[in-house]
Amino acid sequence: MSARRPDLSVYLVADAATIGARSLVDVVAAAVDGGASTVQIRGKDLPAADLLALVEAAADQVRGRATLLVNDRVDVYLAARAAGAAVDGVHVGQSDLPVDRVRRLVGDGAIIGLSASLPAELEALRRLPAGTVDYLGVGAVRATPTKKDHPTPIGWEGFGSFARLAHEFPCVAIGGVGPGDAAAARRAGAAGIAVVRAICSAELPAAAAAALRSEWADAEAAA
Amino acid sequence: MSARRPDLSVYLVADAATIGARSLVDVVAAAVDGGASTVQIRGKDLPAADLLALVEAAADQVRGRATLLVNDRVDVYLAARAAGAAVDGVHVGQSDLPVDRVRRLVGDGAIIGLSASLPAELEALRRLPAGTVDYLGVGAVRATPTKKDHPTPIGWEGFGSFARLAHEFPCVAIGGVGPGDAAAARRAGAAGIAVVRAICSAELPAAAAAALRSEWADAEAAA
Repeated sequence: MSARRPDLSVYLVADAATIGARSLVDVVAAAVDGGASTVQIRGKDLPAADLLALVEAAADQVRGRATLLVNDRVDVYLAARAAGAAVDGVHVGQSDLPVDRVRRLVGDGAIIGLSASLPAELEALRRLPAGTVDYLGVGAVRATPTKKDHPTPIGWEGFGSFARLAHEFPCVAIGGVGPGDAAAARRAGAAGIAVVRAICSAELPAAAAAALRSEWADAEAAA
Repeated sequence: MSARRPDLSVYLVADAATIGARSLVDVVAAAVDGGASTVQIRGKDLPAADLLALVEAAADQVRGRATLLVNDRVDVYLAARAAGAAVDGVHVGQSDLPVDRVRRLVGDGAIIGLSASLPAELEALRRLPAGTVDYLGVGAVRATPTKKDHPTPIGWEGFGSFARLAHEFPCVAIGGVGPGDAAAARRAGAAGIAVVRAICSAELPAAAAAALRSEWADAEAAA
């Protein structure tokens, strides 16, 4: 994937809390086979050694076919990268390391995504140098069981308002998003849809990713 | 503190789960006033932004008077260090990032401590280049409520056996250690005693640290 301009259209958040560590790598591989364009590995409760092993195994599967990001743990990204793993960057939340500090650690070549849904968060971001952050994860669109601490659901209308406000950033819609949402997401200005359960809990993750990919292509064509 | 050869004799593990974040920095300052020689900031359940703020505030208090280490989060160490904070290294456990990967990230100037208490862990460490790790945290000497996942208590006899086996590494005794333990620790070959509650839960942390410092000096003189 070209550095710093990832294809965010079908964005899998592969969450170790939602699927087991062993099957996580299989799900990632299947999702990328099906057409997922970006994969974020999230393991908030995993020891760092386990998360590193997951990220490196996922990188082996993904290599060159999708953008691969690590949630929160910049050190895990750096360790994987230093050992040659094909990992492209990090995704951080508002209570993770501040994005300007992250940019300093990862350098100019890495992708940084940031969760944001409040105008004040956008204002804070705009006080930082341009290029600090490459995209925003915006939500939760709907309530979701896979992330307990998500902000109040904002719906497509709220998403659209924020995406217009944050016009200089590609905005990925996250939070309870899944099949049937691509058209609404695209109309609301989304650069993609980020899903956990829609792929991770699907019987056939590759087919689920392919369906989302096709749905997104239709939404693009209609736009 | 001289890089890579820290004074480990009175080693405070300042654990955000044991004391509140606001008072943690006060306890660190008081402990160093009293004579703590090394301070490790531990915040396993803290968001990275909060841990970074704690580490930077502690560094402001400690500057030049004790060795300051960050538990687990190598990225927090790197971020603090990149911004000029006087933080000296990291302490990692067996399920954190592997120490050879950590050494690669922090460079030659930083201190790395590792929790170890099993011969197999020592053997694995000896397969790495010399200088990968600067000291070992060995325990638990006794059961302790401040770390739920500690290994089976090994007592002073177990500590002594391991310290002899690991003779090339300074070994700090940890796990239920406190006042009255310096002589036994020193006899068992310890380079210092690591405490949480003995300082954090003391009414006067400075006095508690000073008493441990004095006790350690007596044990050294008697050795």
